[in-house]
Amino acid sequence: MDALIRDLVRLVGTDSVLYRPEDLIAYECDGYTIQRGMPRAVVLPSSTEEVSNVVRYLSQNNIPFIPRGAGTGLSGGAIPLGGEVIISLVRMKRLLHVDWENRLAVVQPGFVNLKLTHAIAHRGYYYAPDPSSQYCCTIGGNVAENAGGAHCLKYGVTTNHILGLEVVLTDGEIVELGGMPDAPGYDLLGLLTGSEGTMAIVTKITVRILKNPQAKQTVLAYFDRVEDASYAVSDIIAAGIVPAALEMMDQTAIEGVEAATYPVGHPKDLAALLLAEVDGIAAGIDEQIEQIVAVCRKRNVREVKVAADDQERSRWWANRKTAFGAMGAISPDYLVQDGVIPRSRLPEVLQRIREISEQSGLRIANVFHAGDGNLHPLILFDARNPGETELATRVGSEVLKVCTDVGGSITGEHGVGLEKKEEMRFILTEEEIEAQIQIRNVFNPQDLLNPGKLFPSPSRCVEIKQSALHSS
Amino acid sequence: MDALIRDLVRLVGTDSVLYRPEDLIAYECDGYTIQRGMPRAVVLPSSTEEVSNVVRYLSQNNIPFIPRGAGTGLSGGAIPLGGEVIISLVRMKRLLHVDWENRLAVVQPGFVNLKLTHAIAHRGYYYAPDPSSQYCCTIGGNVAENAGGAHCLKYGVTTNHILGLEVVLTDGEIVELGGMPDAPGYDLLGLLTGSEGTMAIVTKITVRILKNPQAKQTVLAYFDRVEDASYAVSDIIAAGIVPAALEMMDQTAIEGVEAATYPVGHPKDLAALLLAEVDGIAAGIDEQIEQIVAVCRKRNVREVKVAADDQERSRWWANRKTAFGAMGAISPDYLVQDGVIPRSRLPEVLQRIREISEQSGLRIANVFHAGDGNLHPLILFDARNPGETELATRVGSEVLKVCTDVGGSITGEHGVGLEKKEEMRFILTEEEIEAQIQIRNVFNPQDLLNPGKLFPSPSRCVEIKQSALHSS
Repeated sequence: MDALIRDLVRLVGTDSVLYRPEDLIAYECDGYTIQRGMPRAVVLPSSTEEVSNVVRYLSQNNIPFIPRGAGTGLSGGAIPLGGEVIISLVRMKRLLHVDWENRLAVVQPGFVNLKLTHAIAHRGYYYAPDPSSQYCCTIGGNVAENAGGAHCLKYGVTTNHILGLEVVLTDGEIVELGGMPDAPGYDLLGLLTGSEGTMAIVTKITVRILKNPQAKQTVLAYFDRVEDASYAVSDIIAAGIVPAALEMMDQTAIEGVEAATYPVGHPKDLAALLLAEVDGIAAGIDEQIEQIVAVCRKRNVREVKVAADDQERSRWWANRKTAFGAMGAISPDYLVQDGVIPRSRLPEVLQRIREISEQSGLRIANVFHAGDGNLHPLILFDARNPGETELATRVGSEVLKVCTDVGGSITGEHGVGLEKKEEMRFILTEEEIEAQIQIRNVFNPQDLLNPGKLFPSPSRCVEIKQSALHSS
Repeated sequence: MDALIRDLVRLVGTDSVLYRPEDLIAYECDGYTIQRGMPRAVVLPSSTEEVSNVVRYLSQNNIPFIPRGAGTGLSGGAIPLGGEVIISLVRMKRLLHVDWENRLAVVQPGFVNLKLTHAIAHRGYYYAPDPSSQYCCTIGGNVAENAGGAHCLKYGVTTNHILGLEVVLTDGEIVELGGMPDAPGYDLLGLLTGSEGTMAIVTKITVRILKNPQAKQTVLAYFDRVEDASYAVSDIIAAGIVPAALEMMDQTAIEGVEAATYPVGHPKDLAALLLAEVDGIAAGIDEQIEQIVAVCRKRNVREVKVAADDQERSRWWANRKTAFGAMGAISPDYLVQDGVIPRSRLPEVLQRIREISEQSGLRIANVFHAGDGNLHPLILFDARNPGETELATRVGSEVLKVCTDVGGSITGEHGVGLEKKEEMRFILTEEEIEAQIQIRNVFNPQDLLNPGKLFPSPSRCVEIKQSALHSS
């Protein structure tokens, strides 16, 4: 046992430090499986004070470290490429307080997303952000990545639901940000949300809770042409409807979900399907559903149906939410991408993705939050074939380039992490990246907290690409 | 003509520089009239390049400067206490572009808020943030202050509607932030929004535009007890309704609006009135209105009525929106405050404000966004009486202390500016203030851009008050 381990054990106790290779291996990667790295140790603190003590010790000894929630992140934000110490927050998993009158809940960072909705459902409340991994991902991780989900079209992403944070700074200081209601001065709460674990470690979170909508209704529409489904998406939004969710899957994605855990009998020969959900006051729902059905008919829908009951609705959603994992049923390996585009450019972008797929020889399934223009191309490959992992990575980057070329972005909800560091240059100039690093340095001056993430390597000499926005 | 003026004229032309005392006097103060200061000069650039050239020149010559929109700000953010050069953005007032399909508009900073809604109304769209000054305030100023408005309860404040910014940094560099859709990395767009002109000068703004709701309906409810009105507010929210607006006025405020430009015949002996608006799909509206009426009845309402038509609705709103200025009809001077409290603490906070009013001998009218817990106490005074301006200022500070003591904040939508610098200590520790200043320094290292605003004077030795949130 080396000095580091002995010191960590002294700070948090022997049960809260992992250091044997067989214990560390589970922390080699997260939901992004293309790169791996062994941590030097894993610490599992049980309180804010323990986090603070560990962070102070590591900073004083110049040892880099990474906070980690459930490890479901898809961009590699929790991967210890440089042998960092991992600070796992999973033992800080309590729901601390619910304030029904002011509609907020206070949780520890390791509290699982879906458990919050379960804990408040008996009084008719829920927590809105719903990433597909919500049954196991933690709210602390959601804050780090500013996680989204299917229902973010209407309800916004994590940052729209965070009212306050307690964080541990890199010198071990414990600070409160925000709270209820808004704090004056700069929006540091917003700045830290989505900072991918590079500024501070979140130890307590105050979130907004919402009253369940009085009613919800879901439409499933089958299309023979991807373009028709894409135009239907634009038409629904243009009609002034704000669906709670508006999801699309293409043929390959449908093939996957039908081969996986929750098949629901979608026809295999579809070009695309739309899943649209409307919620709110019961009296207004039917009219909106009728409008959505009418739009789909106008766009040559093959079949459109409204969920008969909550059970059918739940089955459709379970089917949709397995889509990423379902790729395992039709391909040995897959890489999830996360591009964003202006909604109006959907048809051409999907066409370009098809071309990239044909040129590369790799199949690409598309599952996405169509209403937000947030694409999740799933690049299917076989890592056993030499060079195919690298090819898949390159294809992912090409897809992101297509997104940024039409004025879009390289991440909607999965973050930049390790995976998309270099693609930051599609969007930001060197000066803009430097400005972001300066902001990070205010919180993380020694670059000990999650080093090597989010920003491209300064040494790499790449042509600086101006954002498409610069000419808008 | 001194060297500074000659140089500014060289940069932007003689028609775009004001320097004679009679021209400068209009820039002595903004909507906060308690403090004044004469600028050294006023520059009126017509383009981003002119802003950039002026800023670069001023920075290189170490001359402090302040950006200014319409000067309607209520916390003194645009007041040149130290003889700063004012950069007025009012000549940059064009609507540059509307993208109907992606629902966004691009405006210059001097474009007036309400004009945007007027420009897009013919196709059924509007811009949501609606400060009471919307007929004359600029969207650039709205971004600086993160302005709110009556309809922010449902639709959110300015930051929720900003998709992208072009800004000029203090070294003159022109940078794009955000855009459509979200940029990766830290949320600098959110950080600059509400930074009160201390980080950069906004030269172009991309905003979200919304489809007009299909229907809206408004309820007016008269109460004999302030407590009943307060409880009705909580009950409406607890019923799961999210009104587009939920406003309250107390007896003194009602006296004012009835003596001003748009009287509508509210009884003079009311303790309080509520103005609640619901919007959305037509089919759902009636049911929500019935629920609101039922809640008011349960809370002993004297009279509750639904607007008969759009004209009546507009009259009620015109009456409400004159409330600040209306104080001029019943008092020689008044000071607007802007505290925020958890909605559930309304009755006790209003009671404490009554006590402060009695103890000080100054009348306090309350007009506020009750649904948000955003109070606007209007402190009535007569500046001709020796010491009364100072008394009014002290009373304002006491009211803010009451707000923070119940876990609230010192500003909901008017900003900190000059007015509430010292009250920042009610909320933030010295360390937290220092962290904010470090963030500012990344953008504004020489403190030339709007110096002396937002943060308390470091020299002043005041007991550091911990936020109530620290013990939550």
